[in-house]
Amino acid sequence: MVARTNKTGKSSMTASALADPVREASEPSSLLARFGSERALSMDCGVALDQWQIAYQTYGALNAARSNAVLVCHALTGDQHVANRNPVTGKPGWWEVLIGAGKPIDTDRFFVICSNVVGGCLGSTGPASVNPLTGKAYGLDFPLLTIRDMVRAQAHLVDHLGIDSLFAVIGGSMGGMQVLQWASSYPERVFAAMPLATGARHSAQNIAFHEVGRQAVMADPDWRGGRYLDENTRPAKGLSVARMGAHITYLSEAALHRKFGRNLQDRDARTFSFDADFQVESYLRHQGSSFVERFDANSYLYLTRAMDYFDLAADHGGSLAKAFAGSKTRFCVASFTSDWLFPTPDSRAIVHALNASGASVSFVELESDKGHDAFLLDEPQLFATLRGFIGSAARARGLDADGSGVRP
Amino acid sequence: MVARTNKTGKSSMTASALADPVREASEPSSLLARFGSERALSMDCGVALDQWQIAYQTYGALNAARSNAVLVCHALTGDQHVANRNPVTGKPGWWEVLIGAGKPIDTDRFFVICSNVVGGCLGSTGPASVNPLTGKAYGLDFPLLTIRDMVRAQAHLVDHLGIDSLFAVIGGSMGGMQVLQWASSYPERVFAAMPLATGARHSAQNIAFHEVGRQAVMADPDWRGGRYLDENTRPAKGLSVARMGAHITYLSEAALHRKFGRNLQDRDARTFSFDADFQVESYLRHQGSSFVERFDANSYLYLTRAMDYFDLAADHGGSLAKAFAGSKTRFCVASFTSDWLFPTPDSRAIVHALNASGASVSFVELESDKGHDAFLLDEPQLFATLRGFIGSAARARGLDADGSGVRP
Repeated sequence: MVARTNKTGKSSMTASALADPVREASEPSSLLARFGSERALSMDCGVALDQWQIAYQTYGALNAARSNAVLVCHALTGDQHVANRNPVTGKPGWWEVLIGAGKPIDTDRFFVICSNVVGGCLGSTGPASVNPLTGKAYGLDFPLLTIRDMVRAQAHLVDHLGIDSLFAVIGGSMGGMQVLQWASSYPERVFAAMPLATGARHSAQNIAFHEVGRQAVMADPDWRGGRYLDENTRPAKGLSVARMGAHITYLSEAALHRKFGRNLQDRDARTFSFDADFQVESYLRHQGSSFVERFDANSYLYLTRAMDYFDLAADHGGSLAKAFAGSKTRFCVASFTSDWLFPTPDSRAIVHALNASGASVSFVELESDKGHDAFLLDEPQLFATLRGFIGSAARARGLDADGSGVRP
Repeated sequence: MVARTNKTGKSSMTASALADPVREASEPSSLLARFGSERALSMDCGVALDQWQIAYQTYGALNAARSNAVLVCHALTGDQHVANRNPVTGKPGWWEVLIGAGKPIDTDRFFVICSNVVGGCLGSTGPASVNPLTGKAYGLDFPLLTIRDMVRAQAHLVDHLGIDSLFAVIGGSMGGMQVLQWASSYPERVFAAMPLATGARHSAQNIAFHEVGRQAVMADPDWRGGRYLDENTRPAKGLSVARMGAHITYLSEAALHRKFGRNLQDRDARTFSFDADFQVESYLRHQGSSFVERFDANSYLYLTRAMDYFDLAADHGGSLAKAFAGSKTRFCVASFTSDWLFPTPDSRAIVHALNASGASVSFVELESDKGHDAFLLDEPQLFATLRGFIGSAARARGLDADGSGVRP
């Protein structure tokens, strides 16, 4: 159903080994926890899902004291395949630079869990899942969800795994929002929290960019009012435009200038046409077209909306400090100088609130010209910061170097 | 053909007084200069238009010495109606704050000319015009054009008006690109030049944003490969998405935060739907829908492309200073602190090149949180700067306070 070509336009030899993303939405190539009415998911919109599932991956081993679990929260278009080959794209896990044996999040030491968010499209219940009431994909009948709903679902999963308290929760961007929500909703269950390149609320400009993306998807007649899965169409053009626009916000002007500048793509002169004359155009088109092969358009609508709705202070009478009142969690907050999607002032606001609430917090603004996406990249300064913070927190938690918990 | 409603959704009483934009594309409510093969427009792409026209407005009176003419160059979606009610929208002219009797560009003193750019859609020849070879709208058969082509066309108009040398050329954004091109192509015809909120080349990030907008238009099936005028459709959804995305880049995060923040639109709580819950969403949707009522989608493609192609240094062996070598023109360059589309370094690069070429230049970076669009707004600092510069230049030109030229 999904056509795949490599960069030269020829069929890829490995295409047959890749999983069908539509199938992954219901029957993922992952561990899977299914929940029924005894574990209904109560959502902020007032709906309770009483048949739902969460797809996840784990790495490393849970120690006897069950005290070495690290929950990794993914960003808007991420998934649970944080440290293994992605079954849909065939690419390495999205944070393999950070997570693995001997890496800053050391799987020889920690039990790492990463789940697909509820509302996502890689196996956790979302708009691409089958609605048990109709036997068809939910589409827009899926209830609007919030970051808190995602975190509630993860808490059910952590219960399911028999873990009372997480050693750490880490994530960037939308993943960082989940980290903040975890620390606020379940402070006693989070020993250490690492919200990276994120904010405690989505800014007006970020809402604006998301709205443009949603309108691009909805403008595509193949979106069919959200029923494209039933009608066997795909709003590929609209979703591609949405991704192209969003992708610009993940980079920085400096990075785009350095990578592409005004260089022409495989040609010596301008063509005086609407072809992708410039490398940056060709690159963006590729970002758009590869995204639509792996991501569900309705999930994109739901997850962007959840980010827009996120405002942790508003949930606490307008005071962000109240969201963390009495917290014993240790925080490590990091931002990047060239990130204009979640600029440093967003992180500073978190740090100020944590200070006001008396929580323990380290904060670092990292020098990088790579924009928002820097948190996903091989950034030695970030890794050094995280190694130091994690090492210190592990000692405080009484975790030995091999992850065994002497003092749970 | 174009449905118009006012903000309350009721038909506007003044709708019948508004001009049809499709008609305006060929038969504008403006002054009009028509040119034939004796005045063919030679374009950078190699094509020569031998039947073409340019729509323009003038304000004030040309003095006897023909030395008091000010050419105003409009931005991407502007037009010739700089200081009069716009016949299509019914709104005031787009720069009435700056241009008029007693204003910084004083129509009691200067003869102000503003023409619709070639490639535009309000009466100058462009993709919405009738192709004399086919009797149908050009659509994508219109040749790709450049900023230099726009300026060549304006030079024909200035000849047609019997003006040898312009007292000043002024414009912001794409208008500023034209100012720079005028000063480079016809230095002896430009006494003073005011390029505002602009750059000597379009950055990779700006090309990227434009490409997203073009892809949004082309993704709309009602675009019909550019033949929508013949097929009586309009790519309204695609063009609206393009405008929404572009509009964000014209503002600033600070301005969006100040104007809208996370305020909800006419409701007390989130609706848990994809309605425009937030004011910023409602505002952007309005920007999109009002734009498509007045602007031609193919013109949008052509003009964004012309901006992307603009690189004045590249036309001079990579040296921007060479573009202005030996220039006697006086320049006034201005940028705004919160403009991230044409940030201050873009203006500084122009100033450095002018310094290197020995030209006379004043430069000011103006404090504003209003983003790129600040150049269109009532900015007292900008107006004071322009008044000072224009006054000094007029004295140097030998223009009396009433605009009469004692020493042409």
